Amino acid sequence: MSDVLSNDLLQKMDAYWRAANYLSVGQIYLQDNPLLDQKLQLDHIKPRLLGHWGTTPGLNLLYVHLNRLITEHDLDMIYITGPGHGGPGLVANAYLEGTYTERYPAIERSRNGMQRLFRQFSWPHGVPSHVSPETPGSIHEGGELGYSLAHAYGAAFDNPNLIVACVVGDGEAETGALATSWHSNKFLNPARDGAVLPILHLNGFKIANPTVLARITPQELTDLMRGYGYEPHFVEGDDPAVVHQTLAATLERVLGEIRAIQDKARNHGDTERPRWPMIVMRTPKGWTGPKQVDGKPVEGTWRAHQVPIADFKNPEHLTLLEDWMRSYRPDELFDATGKLRDELQALAPTGRRRMSANPHANGGELLEPLSLPDFHDYAVTLTGPGALKAEATRVLGTFLRDVMKNSLESENFRLFGPDETASNRLDAVLQVSPKEWMAAIEDVDVDLSPDGRVMEVLSEHLCQGWLEGYLLTGRHGFFSCYEAFIHIIDSMFNQHAKWLKACATIPWRKPIASLNYLLTSHVWRQDHNGFSHQDPGFIDHVANKKSNVVRIYLPPDANCLLSVADHCLRSRNYVNLIVAGKQPEWQWLDIDAAVRHCTTGAGIWHWASDEGEPDVVMACAGDVPTVETLAAVKLLREYVPDIKIRVVNVVDLMVLQPSSEHPHGLDDRRFDELFTTDKPVIFAFHGYPWLIHRLTYRRRNHVNIHVRGYKEEGTTTTPFDMVVLNDLDRYRLALDAILRIPRLADQRDAATSRYWATMQRHKLYIGEHGDDLPEVRDWRWSA
Amino acid sequence: MSDVLSNDLLQKMDAYWRAANYLSVGQIYLQDNPLLDQKLQLDHIKPRLLGHWGTTPGLNLLYVHLNRLITEHDLDMIYITGPGHGGPGLVANAYLEGTYTERYPAIERSRNGMQRLFRQFSWPHGVPSHVSPETPGSIHEGGELGYSLAHAYGAAFDNPNLIVACVVGDGEAETGALATSWHSNKFLNPARDGAVLPILHLNGFKIANPTVLARITPQELTDLMRGYGYEPHFVEGDDPAVVHQTLAATLERVLGEIRAIQDKARNHGDTERPRWPMIVMRTPKGWTGPKQVDGKPVEGTWRAHQVPIADFKNPEHLTLLEDWMRSYRPDELFDATGKLRDELQALAPTGRRRMSANPHANGGELLEPLSLPDFHDYAVTLTGPGALKAEATRVLGTFLRDVMKNSLESENFRLFGPDETASNRLDAVLQVSPKEWMAAIEDVDVDLSPDGRVMEVLSEHLCQGWLEGYLLTGRHGFFSCYEAFIHIIDSMFNQHAKWLKACATIPWRKPIASLNYLLTSHVWRQDHNGFSHQDPGFIDHVANKKSNVVRIYLPPDANCLLSVADHCLRSRNYVNLIVAGKQPEWQWLDIDAAVRHCTTGAGIWHWASDEGEPDVVMACAGDVPTVETLAAVKLLREYVPDIKIRVVNVVDLMVLQPSSEHPHGLDDRRFDELFTTDKPVIFAFHGYPWLIHRLTYRRRNHVNIHVRGYKEEGTTTTPFDMVVLNDLDRYRLALDAILRIPRLADQRDAATSRYWATMQRHKLYIGEHGDDLPEVRDWRWSA
Repeated sequence: MSDVLSNDLLQKMDAYWRAANYLSVGQIYLQDNPLLDQKLQLDHIKPRLLGHWGTTPGLNLLYVHLNRLITEHDLDMIYITGPGHGGPGLVANAYLEGTYTERYPAIERSRNGMQRLFRQFSWPHGVPSHVSPETPGSIHEGGELGYSLAHAYGAAFDNPNLIVACVVGDGEAETGALATSWHSNKFLNPARDGAVLPILHLNGFKIANPTVLARITPQELTDLMRGYGYEPHFVEGDDPAVVHQTLAATLERVLGEIRAIQDKARNHGDTERPRWPMIVMRTPKGWTGPKQVDGKPVEGTWRAHQVPIADFKNPEHLTLLEDWMRSYRPDELFDATGKLRDELQALAPTGRRRMSANPHANGGELLEPLSLPDFHDYAVTLTGPGALKAEATRVLGTFLRDVMKNSLESENFRLFGPDETASNRLDAVLQVSPKEWMAAIEDVDVDLSPDGRVMEVLSEHLCQGWLEGYLLTGRHGFFSCYEAFIHIIDSMFNQHAKWLKACATIPWRKPIASLNYLLTSHVWRQDHNGFSHQDPGFIDHVANKKSNVVRIYLPPDANCLLSVADHCLRSRNYVNLIVAGKQPEWQWLDIDAAVRHCTTGAGIWHWASDEGEPDVVMACAGDVPTVETLAAVKLLREYVPDIKIRVVNVVDLMVLQPSSEHPHGLDDRRFDELFTTDKPVIFAFHGYPWLIHRLTYRRRNHVNIHVRGYKEEGTTTTPFDMVVLNDLDRYRLALDAILRIPRLADQRDAATSRYWATMQRHKLYIGEHGDDLPEVRDWRWSA
Repeated sequence: MSDVLSNDLLQKMDAYWRAANYLSVGQIYLQDNPLLDQKLQLDHIKPRLLGHWGTTPGLNLLYVHLNRLITEHDLDMIYITGPGHGGPGLVANAYLEGTYTERYPAIERSRNGMQRLFRQFSWPHGVPSHVSPETPGSIHEGGELGYSLAHAYGAAFDNPNLIVACVVGDGEAETGALATSWHSNKFLNPARDGAVLPILHLNGFKIANPTVLARITPQELTDLMRGYGYEPHFVEGDDPAVVHQTLAATLERVLGEIRAIQDKARNHGDTERPRWPMIVMRTPKGWTGPKQVDGKPVEGTWRAHQVPIADFKNPEHLTLLEDWMRSYRPDELFDATGKLRDELQALAPTGRRRMSANPHANGGELLEPLSLPDFHDYAVTLTGPGALKAEATRVLGTFLRDVMKNSLESENFRLFGPDETASNRLDAVLQVSPKEWMAAIEDVDVDLSPDGRVMEVLSEHLCQGWLEGYLLTGRHGFFSCYEAFIHIIDSMFNQHAKWLKACATIPWRKPIASLNYLLTSHVWRQDHNGFSHQDPGFIDHVANKKSNVVRIYLPPDANCLLSVADHCLRSRNYVNLIVAGKQPEWQWLDIDAAVRHCTTGAGIWHWASDEGEPDVVMACAGDVPTVETLAAVKLLREYVPDIKIRVVNVVDLMVLQPSSEHPHGLDDRRFDELFTTDKPVIFAFHGYPWLIHRLTYRRRNHVNIHVRGYKEEGTTTTPFDMVVLNDLDRYRLALDAILRIPRLADQRDAATSRYWATMQRHKLYIGEHGDDLPEVRDWRWSA
């Protein structure tokens, strides 16, 4: 390869790299003397040294080289860094490009500004040590590892002119999520989508160990990348001059390959899955840092991971740090006022071409609202409550089909699911868009295409990661999943919710579309699967996150589901969790009633209630609990016709919390109006029962709230037996009411006996017939 | 390759396969007429058809071939099936081998028994549709996908004579956990550990889509497997006779390769990582099932996934099913009494060589207790409460070091962690055992060896999966993890907890060692990392599971941690969750007091309390909350010296629940003795505060319990600022007490003012100095 970089350019790029490295080290260590215009002294050093050096010089090296590529070829490029510990490097580069000062004017491009830049890093009320929402140009928190490549692909979908450079750390590469993310190339269409350039950074070490990919043979690593469908290009070395030249040449080459792939697909109709290029960059961990500290090797080892030199009571350490920082020759990089020298500044892209200012990395800047059809048009028509059965998610599917249809042109909506779109009965969507599939297609296949907008892969991690990347770059999406297995991405949800929470206090982060989950194939209807598929705990998990970013909905029927889904697709900056079943269930509310009900979040169902002060409140949240509650009401009217019953249904779970805890929380007066202040409340809940207690413990009538829900009992059995096993069935709910209404005290024994006799009959019947009792199978409401 | 199977043997093996397939189909469909000695009628068919056919014939084929290999070579082998939907196949094979009848005598080897076998499957109060704890020979629930290969490696560790045949489904292979599990071969030592034989079953389809690995080129698949460090052997076809012969020859060959690898390592000291063989088996989904139903292809497509023929109101379907079942020629397979014919029975291994009866798959049969050192010997010596600081996990590390030392010979204990053993300060263990590492070792490395027993890889999935496999085969382990990132395996924990819950009702499943988690580097001390590393919600997640399998401990100091850890390592059939910090913290209890305290689970700390009825109970759970509570007590003694304070510390979180809800729950009398029935309780909790409410809402004094905990506020900041941000700091706790003690009503305003002034000073100080106020940094208890 002939040299891509002239000697002059190479020298300047090296200087730019040194500037970024200098600023990175400064952030970790210094609270004063930012330009080292004095001899370094102990009180220039921060009292608490927090941060990560090891990965930073590699990230900085790539940054300056990507900058060259951007300016040379006028590229639209963003930079995702899996090894997000490299926070100081990304901050340093945003500062060098000027974006940092634009976002945070106090951090001027001057000696003072540099000092503030250094001080604020890992400083109380300053900025976090990782790449974070506060970092301009980032859509990827560098805390939990494993999601960089999935985010990169999500960002590239439907952004044909975008190139997403994605650094994958070799530590991160050991995670499950990352290991399967390489396969995302089977779901990216070069004609329609942008490009992802994965750069596997083999710096060789994690916190305390070498990395697996750095210690397999080069042939194995080549095989692995080819097996994943990439063509690897190796950049290796520890001599900056050599690495600069190799890296520049390699970037030119891979850009050429990307362009050739896109040209074939876009201009010559080639729909075959290409072999995308990727780069393996093997450079030392903590490169350019101290070679040795206290006689132990540091550069090129795991010891460079965090703060390579500490304990400054040792005066040698002070000298070592000063030597290290001066090795970057800051006086060549910054002028006396602390500004980057003009000839270096000229290397950086400008305006929105700066990776730190690219609008794709602040997706709200690009967000266009979805063109939503009127959800009323998809409503189930009812002659009255319980007039018919419908499959709620199938109804929703027709609405989503037209959401998809309306967005085909704007190309800003996708549906995500782990091989479950049809199983979850959203398959109407496939009428307007097939499933994305770049791998081989055979005659037997249906609904697969390189142009699909339904994203299916058997990995919840990929669905979540792609969707996050898609949303964070300003688009919309909807993720349907089996309820139990959404726990696979508990941790990813955490990180996204934390990201959103942090963004709320960053004015320049514009609102993005909410992350919408539909959990279906839920705990109560796992006929084919049984106990392993029964877990409603994601609701609890979501409820733990900050109230300003989470919403939880349990629509009781199809029309409520429509209303909730429409609301969620319009919302911004939330995580919306919707739980709804896919099986045929009784329908309760016409669409107007549904909208009213969902708007208030909870309400009395008057058509099922007696007027006036009730003897008991029969409350419910979730579709199956609603059916059982209404059936229990019918039983109660038969057994104890002289009592007054009130039915309260809760759609928006957060209304149960005090208004001080959640913006949706009902004020106490309204809560008391629904649930009374002293009457027994029998609450049938979709999930683990104690969640209702934790949401309502401050309410006046809490002591009378008696909750039934899933208590971890189940197997492969009938639908009704599932509720029986968990004491959520209509007979149990009716008994619960009778036992708690004071004036029915004399009927308790008889009711209890009747209950046990019914359970006995149920058990005998299902054991004999393998199916539910006809009266529960065929039950229907009539007012 | 010359034929391995004689024609006679091939015919018999094919018949055995047909028998397993016949029994599998029978389980899915029939409630009567098991031998088809009558013409099939509608009422022979179950009312609810639940199960999965697609993967089953492939699993059955492998079973009969592995049986041949076992008998031919007298192998010790177990069978792990990732596509666990294949429940009917595994049950069928256990039945054919006789194990099923030994475990469940009612399921006789007769016509009647066969009918019961069929009926019980996916039948209420019968057996689940998946491979499950009820299935003899299984250590792997086939519900949630992705963990088969990690389980297989866990089973193989320290079992040099065992071969774990592990079928990986091509759907499952798309999951993150499975994608990284292939790398487990870098952690398996052929000299000391057994062998894993991965068999990637490319049946081509998931529920609704083709699979990625079935639709990449054969060269890519070969590259991928070589990249993962395996040598792939392909077995492909849809002609049984050909596939039988190829599969038999391939199994002979891979066994030879395994033996050669083991011989080199064991007898010739070769410590280089070998290239292990693996098999790619490409056979049709739903092989031998109906080719077409209603004019649509079924065999070889995703339509074969569950129940290929349904809707038996259509009489053609009845004929189709009968033809399908008769195609296996049941009369050739079973005699008139329903017994498998003798010449076929002779093919199966016997006794403990049967994969369904192998004791490794019922690990409790092999479990030996750990030889534990006396934990008192590792105690921190205290002259009194708060006499010194210690790092709790570092103290624990010395104990674990000797647990490891004592088990070096028995080879039945391993320590697991995602690259964090040293970071979590358990590195004393490395004094007696290095970290397992079969990849390349370089000069700079320390503590790595092919003979290590500390398992580190940057994948929580692998740590969890390996540990589960290790425990389920009768050994012991301990998993330390950063608290926030344990959520990565939330879903795996669910499945293991469900497995344990189910085992409790299966008498032949012998107790296994508990799964022990140590969560450290916890929410309150994430100085280097910040918000992304702050999440105490795993406690909530665990608390949702069945009370007979989960235990949660929050030891307040090092000696309590020792006592708790010793207890956990002795326990069986639980998941024990221990949360303890690694940073230097004040120590409170000498070892005898610690043992007493941990034994009761919660108690009054008399040395910090006033005698008699208190004005306020200052309660705490967790190490940092304990420090803040005791500091608050000291502040209160200063501000309001005339009040009586009681300090209650909770180690065992489950004591808070009513005894009806959890076996560790305190009875109400005892709870009231600790927490009073009417005094304010200021409860400082390690995790999300509402968990304390959900555990105590039934207690008499619940209305007076005021909880402080993590409320999702944090960043990279100082340790004390973290508790301030979440209102868990000593000043806030003291103020909380003053505000709630009725007779201090006149001091409320002054106390509130003082509190805000202190907070102001705190903010100014840390903003200025980047570190905590000296009085909180250097605080110590003195009674």
